[in-house]
Amino acid sequence: MSVHVIGTGLLGTSLGLALTGAGHEVTLADLSPTAQRLAADLGAGTVGEPEATDVVIVATPPDVAGQTILTALDRFPEATVTDVASVKTVLLHEVRAACAPGDLDRYIGSHPMAGREKSGAIAARDDLFVGRPWVVCSDDDTPAARLAQIVALATDVGAAVVHLDPEFHDSSVARVSHAPQVMASLMAAQLVDMPADGVALAGQGLRDVTRIAASDASLWTQILAGNAAEVREVLESIRADLDTLISALELAPGAIATIAQTITAGNDGYDRIPGKHGQAPQKYAEITVLIDDTPGMLGKLFADVGELGINIEDIRIEHATGVKLGSVEVAVVPARQRELEEGLTSRGWWVPEAVIEHEGQQ
Amino acid sequence: MSVHVIGTGLLGTSLGLALTGAGHEVTLADLSPTAQRLAADLGAGTVGEPEATDVVIVATPPDVAGQTILTALDRFPEATVTDVASVKTVLLHEVRAACAPGDLDRYIGSHPMAGREKSGAIAARDDLFVGRPWVVCSDDDTPAARLAQIVALATDVGAAVVHLDPEFHDSSVARVSHAPQVMASLMAAQLVDMPADGVALAGQGLRDVTRIAASDASLWTQILAGNAAEVREVLESIRADLDTLISALELAPGAIATIAQTITAGNDGYDRIPGKHGQAPQKYAEITVLIDDTPGMLGKLFADVGELGINIEDIRIEHATGVKLGSVEVAVVPARQRELEEGLTSRGWWVPEAVIEHEGQQ
Repeated sequence: MSVHVIGTGLLGTSLGLALTGAGHEVTLADLSPTAQRLAADLGAGTVGEPEATDVVIVATPPDVAGQTILTALDRFPEATVTDVASVKTVLLHEVRAACAPGDLDRYIGSHPMAGREKSGAIAARDDLFVGRPWVVCSDDDTPAARLAQIVALATDVGAAVVHLDPEFHDSSVARVSHAPQVMASLMAAQLVDMPADGVALAGQGLRDVTRIAASDASLWTQILAGNAAEVREVLESIRADLDTLISALELAPGAIATIAQTITAGNDGYDRIPGKHGQAPQKYAEITVLIDDTPGMLGKLFADVGELGINIEDIRIEHATGVKLGSVEVAVVPARQRELEEGLTSRGWWVPEAVIEHEGQQ
Repeated sequence: MSVHVIGTGLLGTSLGLALTGAGHEVTLADLSPTAQRLAADLGAGTVGEPEATDVVIVATPPDVAGQTILTALDRFPEATVTDVASVKTVLLHEVRAACAPGDLDRYIGSHPMAGREKSGAIAARDDLFVGRPWVVCSDDDTPAARLAQIVALATDVGAAVVHLDPEFHDSSVARVSHAPQVMASLMAAQLVDMPADGVALAGQGLRDVTRIAASDASLWTQILAGNAAEVREVLESIRADLDTLISALELAPGAIATIAQTITAGNDGYDRIPGKHGQAPQKYAEITVLIDDTPGMLGKLFADVGELGINIEDIRIEHATGVKLGSVEVAVVPARQRELEEGLTSRGWWVPEAVIEHEGQQ
């Protein structure tokens, strides 16, 4: 296929690299001459607007995506036009309201759920989409041949296609992606004015909750503004629960049950998050190994695990404050736990004996 | 020293194991005859109340710790009494209000910051406290000899002693431990009624933010209730920020700046979390390796890293949805990044080329 990519940032350039690698003929355009030349130099395609093209992919910043889609529909009257923005409903409304009659069928919104806040062509990777969900927003009026084009491109870059309608997509990402970003940011903001002695008590729980608080502010401002109504709905629901909890912390009669319900509801919600490979959540057996935090120790550990022929499902490294010692938690399927513990112990590793489940920690 | 441990749950039994291992003479008591016998069978000490003891450690559930400390001060008139509860101010007030004249000097609150929500003697580990902070709440009136006893015990079980006053401790853990638990639980609770198709879009961000939402509801109810005033103060501050953001999401003029400030404040707060070994946060270079998710692959990978002599600072494994492929992010000091990338590539690993920093992701 011939594919014209408009916008050669992280996503556009990564798509150019991957599609070129898959044998498609890619042309590139960006408002910035430097950006489009950089993308071309990296191997993402050829600079310039073609006479005609099979597919246009709009990969501009989200706040100009709508206008760019409309221009592309106009300029390439035979092409299928898609985009990569992480909010779909506003774009669809914008296109529907302004496109020429009949053109709406040629627009199919996409959301490849890949990315890093490290932006620009220089951060592009040809494998950015490998194994990631690629949401396609089509409806009953979408011509099958055009839908097949988008599905083929998504598949060619290694993504797993998921068909969703735009409203469902937007309300879902508000809950599983945008609200978590807000919660992480709100929590991390509470640390700004803390004395260093207090922040020093931070453990792995705080680190996990706030990890994505380090994300790019400019990108996330556009995402939250673009999905404002849906995000607000989730946040209002959270605020209602927060209000209930804050009142309960005045410890009037009945308050303890309310506090317990907050934590229990969190237990229930956590259990709904799918595990790896799209399966239902699986409980792994977790073993802890204490190691000197010196070069090569992890290498030695995992070499030994490898020799035992046991697959590691997850790993967490915890560095203790103030001492040169780390603990490594290795999650494996429960059936292999005992074997791993014995195998590592016999190879001289310091493996505590207790049976610990994977889920939950203080 | 002779040490009497009251309460043989996870913490009490773990302390018994560790202190016995360090050569101290440990006696054990628990309201449950089965629990105390189990702890003794595991090697945590001898069942029974001694005539006298150097130190009493109260390791009961937090809601009965105050009364147990008072009883211990009365029963052992020469002993230093400490406890392991994660909230200190309420206990101190309770002891101060009710203890005999002069006895207050014999009570020194502790908070060993270790634990798992997996409870009971059966989950105990003799290395539970190794490398963990052990907060000691003493004041100017605390006799040096008694303080030295508690510090010695903490050190003997491998913990790193941190001296804090109880108010500072409680307000700090409200912020770095208790509020994060609440935020994780509130976020996870939003998933309870979601359609499975929507939850399936969950990525690593949601998983991280909600990981501790799996924690034990009974323990956390006691902790939040015990530190209610301090936790409420943090949550009210978060609610104020949340209110501001919810209003901003109505997208009135000026709203975009407010949204950006929310994310930026989160960036700033995240940067304050100390890195490993109590150092200032360090940015690591992170490289991504794509692997088949089959047994032994991680073992082979880390064996190769080990051979290169490079210390792995952090690891994150991401399993793609729907495909048998995982990506492993390995964080190393920036100076070794290029060497690691080249070394792994030359050994046949699939290492994308881009330079990605450790902090932040979409």
